[in-house]
Amino acid sequence: MGKTQKEKLPIGIFDSGVGGLTVFKEVISLLPTEDIIYLGDTARVPYGTRSPQTVIKYSQEITSFLQRQGIKLLVVACNTSSAVSLPTLQKENTIPVIGVIEPGARWAAEVTQNKKVGVIGTEGTVKSRAYEQTIQMIDHEITVISRACPLLVPLAEEGWLDGEVTRLTAQSYLNPLREEQIDTLVLGCTHYPLLEVTIREIMGDGVYLVNSAKETAKEVQKILDAERLTSPGEKNGSYRFYVTDNVERFIAVGERFLGRTLEAVELVS
Amino acid sequence: MGKTQKEKLPIGIFDSGVGGLTVFKEVISLLPTEDIIYLGDTARVPYGTRSPQTVIKYSQEITSFLQRQGIKLLVVACNTSSAVSLPTLQKENTIPVIGVIEPGARWAAEVTQNKKVGVIGTEGTVKSRAYEQTIQMIDHEITVISRACPLLVPLAEEGWLDGEVTRLTAQSYLNPLREEQIDTLVLGCTHYPLLEVTIREIMGDGVYLVNSAKETAKEVQKILDAERLTSPGEKNGSYRFYVTDNVERFIAVGERFLGRTLEAVELVS
Repeated sequence: MGKTQKEKLPIGIFDSGVGGLTVFKEVISLLPTEDIIYLGDTARVPYGTRSPQTVIKYSQEITSFLQRQGIKLLVVACNTSSAVSLPTLQKENTIPVIGVIEPGARWAAEVTQNKKVGVIGTEGTVKSRAYEQTIQMIDHEITVISRACPLLVPLAEEGWLDGEVTRLTAQSYLNPLREEQIDTLVLGCTHYPLLEVTIREIMGDGVYLVNSAKETAKEVQKILDAERLTSPGEKNGSYRFYVTDNVERFIAVGERFLGRTLEAVELVS
Repeated sequence: MGKTQKEKLPIGIFDSGVGGLTVFKEVISLLPTEDIIYLGDTARVPYGTRSPQTVIKYSQEITSFLQRQGIKLLVVACNTSSAVSLPTLQKENTIPVIGVIEPGARWAAEVTQNKKVGVIGTEGTVKSRAYEQTIQMIDHEITVISRACPLLVPLAEEGWLDGEVTRLTAQSYLNPLREEQIDTLVLGCTHYPLLEVTIREIMGDGVYLVNSAKETAKEVQKILDAERLTSPGEKNGSYRFYVTDNVERFIAVGERFLGRTLEAVELVS
């Protein structure tokens, strides 16, 4: 396939469920003319409590599916999958494969002043130590304090974005990080940007919040530029959504995530 | 296989994950000499947000696996699966297949005085209307008020069984049921017995809590008696556990659920 055709292909984005829509949102805001295919693996969500082997297998299956649709670049918009399956996916595919960990880790390493960075994520992400390793590879003097926050994903999916329950839950998870006096906190799960207001309230203005979704979108833009893959189109891109189960629930939760209506959602198995 | 051999076979119990261990616990307490094989489908948990077709497919796969091990009776210790796949499993298998819905529904219909019964469960269970239909088939004058409580499962798995967050969350779900002045509440999810203290505190002593796990264990005993399948053994039964992913997490959460150590946990795919 010639360069000219390749540029016109969509970007592929996948996540274990709806969470990756926060990445989708940042990508379309930064790159409005790009076409996008999004796949949410709603039949097998959540990845956060699964073993690495299982997450790698699922990620490979989804990548094959998206490759068959024809994509020019793949975004692994799931922290757990980025943490454990990125090297495998990059090795097995010739198109650029971008995860959400490295962009967030790089930005955290750049903005921290006191070299104390906090990371919150799912059990899988935290156990993988992927943020920790990536941040310390950039600057080994940085101390990384990680904390799994399993309840924040169901709270976000339930739409309880603020209020007493969410505040108390977040406090219980975040207080130990506050006590360690981190000055930077990585929101290491795609759901967490939805809880940003509550998290900011607890951490205070002195702590910089790294939104991995935003940093990943910037990385996508950079790679498209570098590889001359930016869409030549001038009108807004078109979007297709695939889910592996429960279309109805994906639309309901997804619309709350995006603040816009979701059309063209199809079931695949 | 002759009767004498059949009695010696284990009981099969399956659930989408660790939740069914509350049923396991009641069964071993009532029938201590029975051998049991438990399967937790931890690779595909939770079932509560999946479509009925998907839940039926998963349940069939697990039933085949347990049948290959040799079992004399199957307990579907998952409300979501009981709600949608029980008729299929009963049709496809010659051994008795017992779900958790009917025993709980029957008991609720029996104990309610004012004929107002509340049911709490996952999204899948509530959407299936299985409790509602079963209760009203027994007594069509009973009003059933159902409510999905998606956050209670992750709270129980995180081990937050009481405390402010759990109390506030449960209150938010249960207050509408209190206002309807139900006198009976079905804990329609295998995780909920773990939160019984908090739920009882909110509902008050005037509301009878139906623990489906307990009622299901009684049903197992009844069927074993009726079919002359009760184990002839006199010493304590032996237990085998299979999970489809993440043995380590199953043991950690499961031991909290059972209050005893879990041995012989094997991974199957």
